[in-house]
Amino acid sequence: MSDFRSLDASEVRYDDRGLVPAIVQDALDGRVLMMAWMNAESLALSLETGSTVFWSRSRQEIWAKGATSGNVQVIEAVSMDCDGDTLLFQVQQVGAGACHTGARSCFDLPPVVEP
Amino acid sequence: MSDFRSLDASEVRYDDRGLVPAIVQDALDGRVLMMAWMNAESLALSLETGSTVFWSRSRQEIWAKGATSGNVQVIEAVSMDCDGDTLLFQVQQVGAGACHTGARSCFDLPPVVEP
Repeated sequence: MSDFRSLDASEVRYDDRGLVPAIVQDALDGRVLMMAWMNAESLALSLETGSTVFWSRSRQEIWAKGATSGNVQVIEAVSMDCDGDTLLFQVQQVGAGACHTGARSCFDLPPVVEP
Repeated sequence: MSDFRSLDASEVRYDDRGLVPAIVQDALDGRVLMMAWMNAESLALSLETGSTVFWSRSRQEIWAKGATSGNVQVIEAVSMDCDGDTLLFQVQQVGAGACHTGARSCFDLPPVVEP
């Protein structure tokens, strides 16, 4: 990870809504799990607690990932991109997965449920 | 890749600016290379040409990745997430890398240039 840009939270460039996209990647195998949004408060909470906390655009509230499901994401590394307007989190995904469908990644098809 | 959601371009949910974030991942080793934005036209061009084409928010124009640098991204797979508002491209990155700094990934530190 030493070749990653370190995150200086004061250098993050939020958009006109005060949000920055956060890509979440599985630290074990590099699978992209999800993308969600953070504001300054949720980024600070993520760094303080060591687990991902997002901003829900639909509910307009802080959203601690896994608070309901238990499927928290333990942060292993954070970096920002070359112009500071996108974040990349590498995490240990606890539980079955990141997606509300039960899939490991939000980019996967949901698991088949046998009748 | 067979467990990935296939992309039905008609199901992509663009934001109020007509844009969707596109995460670009190296198909070889899973490294996240960059995140940029697409509108419907640049997504259609990406799928037609087989290489990534984005929408530049700063220049307000179509931006064929690698048109100047030669560092094109040959698309191997495309998927969308569970609510259709984020795209994930897996690509073969041609040339030194994806970043304008010369780094392989926009999330990497730029390469050290010897004096």
